[in-house]
Amino acid sequence: MNSLERLIQEISRLPGLGKKSATRLAYHLLSGDAVDAQRLGILLQGLHEAIRPCSRCGSFTEDDPCPLCSDRGRDHTTICVVEHPQDVAVMEASREFQGVYHVLGGVIAPIEGVGPGDLTIGALLRRARDEKVREVIIATNPTVEGDTTALYVAQQLRELTKVSVTRLALGLPVGADLEYADRLTLARSLRGRTLLGEDT
Amino acid sequence: MNSLERLIQEISRLPGLGKKSATRLAYHLLSGDAVDAQRLGILLQGLHEAIRPCSRCGSFTEDDPCPLCSDRGRDHTTICVVEHPQDVAVMEASREFQGVYHVLGGVIAPIEGVGPGDLTIGALLRRARDEKVREVIIATNPTVEGDTTALYVAQQLRELTKVSVTRLALGLPVGADLEYADRLTLARSLRGRTLLGEDT
Repeated sequence: MNSLERLIQEISRLPGLGKKSATRLAYHLLSGDAVDAQRLGILLQGLHEAIRPCSRCGSFTEDDPCPLCSDRGRDHTTICVVEHPQDVAVMEASREFQGVYHVLGGVIAPIEGVGPGDLTIGALLRRARDEKVREVIIATNPTVEGDTTALYVAQQLRELTKVSVTRLALGLPVGADLEYADRLTLARSLRGRTLLGEDT
Repeated sequence: MNSLERLIQEISRLPGLGKKSATRLAYHLLSGDAVDAQRLGILLQGLHEAIRPCSRCGSFTEDDPCPLCSDRGRDHTTICVVEHPQDVAVMEASREFQGVYHVLGGVIAPIEGVGPGDLTIGALLRRARDEKVREVIIATNPTVEGDTTALYVAQQLRELTKVSVTRLALGLPVGADLEYADRLTLARSLRGRTLLGEDT
């Protein structure tokens, strides 16, 4: 197998990229400037050395603790718990949250062999106990595993601390059409209905 | 901008990958094994050094001339002319062609400033004259530019050599539904109709 075939094989291992897309990308990189492929190559080679999980919240960062954890302007009494490091970037993009984060590193999924011990729940409990935390917002995905994990984390937090534990609201996505909303989402958005003018 | 943001920027420059896919891929690479990202990085860094255009046909290769041009078992009297190096791999996958290739490096596109002089037409003419070539199959894409280029190449070949110049057949794709075929394809497939039982 030559370098080109090996590159196609490596690229097609990435999520969402099949053999065809991988081939197209490989030929694109080969047809373009050598410097472009090299720059990407150098970035990938040094990636894991440059970026590491923050020892505090677990999000990816170049400095430890991460800029979010070191930011004294943020509200360190509110922790938003997410599944994966990329969720931190997603939450930050909403520009709605001013607190700090805690990355669980996944969700409880017994079928895949992931138990509570495989997540950073212990570290979250220590943070909630030792730091002056008032609220923990659980922002795991609204899936079976995400909900189970949220319940488990909430239970543990309530047993050991007095922090208030909340969960992201479920409901219709902004701009959605009732007609295309699924039954469960509609039911949750009805159950969680708010007073008109309450949420601006 | 940190390494992760730079990586996302570099990935989103690739064709077919937007900011979202690039972010997903970057986080995937960062969440996975460091060795995986490094292996991909090393491949990309050395890509242009390991793989170069064959000095004879222009397809990408580790050895020069390429394995196809050096293969004495192939029919060197038939040259298949394609636009891009990746088209060689596509043609080879069909397992129908036993001859050798010639990569033009694109098509004549005056609007984009690509004239005949920017393609390897001169080299093709030399090959057709000097080597014992009997047939040149033009396999440029059935687009306006591809057709224009095919006509131009054919004209040049006929002026300078006695090789027979052919073009890939146009018609319905295998498995297609007449109902969904576009008018032009249908017209070409009607004009190019073959005797039943002629093409196996």
